[in-house]
Amino acid sequence: MSLLVIGTVAFDAIETPFGKTDKIVGGAATYASLAASYFYDQVKIVAVVGDDFPASEIKDFNNHHISTEGLQVKQGEKSFFWSGKYHNDMNSRDTLITELNVLADFDPIIPESYQDCEYLMLGNLTPQIQQTVINRLNKRPKLIVMDTMNFWMDIAMDDLLKTISMVDVLTINDAEARQLSGEYSLVKAAQKILAMGPEYLIIKKGEHGALLFHKDLIFSAPALPLAEVFDPTGAGDTFAGGFIGYMAKAGEVNFHNMKNAIIYGSALASFCVEKFGTERLKGLTADDVKARIQQFVSLASFIIE
Amino acid sequence: MSLLVIGTVAFDAIETPFGKTDKIVGGAATYASLAASYFYDQVKIVAVVGDDFPASEIKDFNNHHISTEGLQVKQGEKSFFWSGKYHNDMNSRDTLITELNVLADFDPIIPESYQDCEYLMLGNLTPQIQQTVINRLNKRPKLIVMDTMNFWMDIAMDDLLKTISMVDVLTINDAEARQLSGEYSLVKAAQKILAMGPEYLIIKKGEHGALLFHKDLIFSAPALPLAEVFDPTGAGDTFAGGFIGYMAKAGEVNFHNMKNAIIYGSALASFCVEKFGTERLKGLTADDVKARIQQFVSLASFIIE
Repeated sequence: MSLLVIGTVAFDAIETPFGKTDKIVGGAATYASLAASYFYDQVKIVAVVGDDFPASEIKDFNNHHISTEGLQVKQGEKSFFWSGKYHNDMNSRDTLITELNVLADFDPIIPESYQDCEYLMLGNLTPQIQQTVINRLNKRPKLIVMDTMNFWMDIAMDDLLKTISMVDVLTINDAEARQLSGEYSLVKAAQKILAMGPEYLIIKKGEHGALLFHKDLIFSAPALPLAEVFDPTGAGDTFAGGFIGYMAKAGEVNFHNMKNAIIYGSALASFCVEKFGTERLKGLTADDVKARIQQFVSLASFIIE
Repeated sequence: MSLLVIGTVAFDAIETPFGKTDKIVGGAATYASLAASYFYDQVKIVAVVGDDFPASEIKDFNNHHISTEGLQVKQGEKSFFWSGKYHNDMNSRDTLITELNVLADFDPIIPESYQDCEYLMLGNLTPQIQQTVINRLNKRPKLIVMDTMNFWMDIAMDDLLKTISMVDVLTINDAEARQLSGEYSLVKAAQKILAMGPEYLIIKKGEHGALLFHKDLIFSAPALPLAEVFDPTGAGDTFAGGFIGYMAKAGEVNFHNMKNAIIYGSALASFCVEKFGTERLKGLTADDVKARIQQFVSLASFIIE
């Protein structure tokens, strides 16, 4: 039994109102696997990097009990690189540089030892690659969670719809849900998107929390109000990784566990944004996570007799 | 013991993507008093209208056990009139017409029989008039809730700050909290606003729910995700009225009761937007409200062992 995470492992250079970084390690699979590792000890990565990727960072994955057997290191090539600058409100950003490098012809090879995958996290990548991963698994995983973004809606809608039809849970933000469905109301958008295949839809609303839709059930999760969001990069991937990590730990796929998984994912995302890159996500203690979860419980609980 | 509501009683003409109304009855005190009447039977209005205001509408207030002794009817004058058009997203609107009419020289006279006021709802009006009402009460009410808007921040900041310093609870939206405090982070904004005087701050976030701040406590309340928002006019006033109506019923002023009051206020606001004007707010049954509250409980509840 394992949790397979596919996505980018990459370099980011980030500028926020609080400061600026050189190239630091980022990528959807990086954030998602680190987050998942807090709840589950059989996390495995499929990704690709160049020979510029530091061995110490690979060791950091392994220190989190994350298997990197499926992390391809391409000699003579460079890792995917993204650079962006956040606006003052931290809710929008400009992409300054995108260098695909090794990602341009990424072939997601699944090591034999990964075929025990029960939980599959498809981090944001081309829908075609996400689909290939599903097809290369001998047995369909018990739970497939897919993250994606507006970019693929703009340039690869047919592939995207095909991949969406193959997964159990789709995670997108509110603007993307509106774009994908053509509906402004998130309730109507959710009805249309659930009809595309997934049993569950999570709409991420950043500082406003998240909504989980399943049949005619809705769960509204709060976000922790923060005095400072230092760097939002990776928050969505961290959320998704924490979510599926908790689901793998819980075992049973149902609405109750999904609600809690959203709270756990949100808690990890709230740590992620406190520092640049993955800094805050590495080295959290169980007590840190427990205390943060308690903050979510206090934040959202009310008792009406 | 009574709950005094001060604010506008007026005519609105509304255009939304769903349709268009002629002059219909609206105004902050109208929505707030109707909402409060579902929880408390000693609601009293202080407001002013012209002789164009229909007697049948005054009777509707009385049918809701709302006292209109303090509703001044100015012979030979016209009621306040506002006309607006909502954009397709329903989150923004253009004001087409504002005719102050009787509101231009409104003197908020408090009938002697209103001096038993324990709960005071200051609906959106000039901060000077809101202040006058507080000063004209012989005994300071147990709970003063104040609603206001960006307009007064633009043209009457000094008066506004003076009035804010005199109240217990301030309700504003997120953009207004940012404008009033000069802080983008709502946590920092709340700290600054609580330092201006109020013990409690409610930040209304429309479709994203509401946040309650008190000392270092925060409560995040969800909004009910709706398939259709037919007409948002009056939702904020309905929320505030439901909030203080529930507080009057609960009796004790504390964080626990305020959390529930926010859920009750949100529930009534979710009815308000289902039809034009006050139509949906009139004639709800206790069962309607109870069922809606249950939807909020289902929506937001999670159990983490």
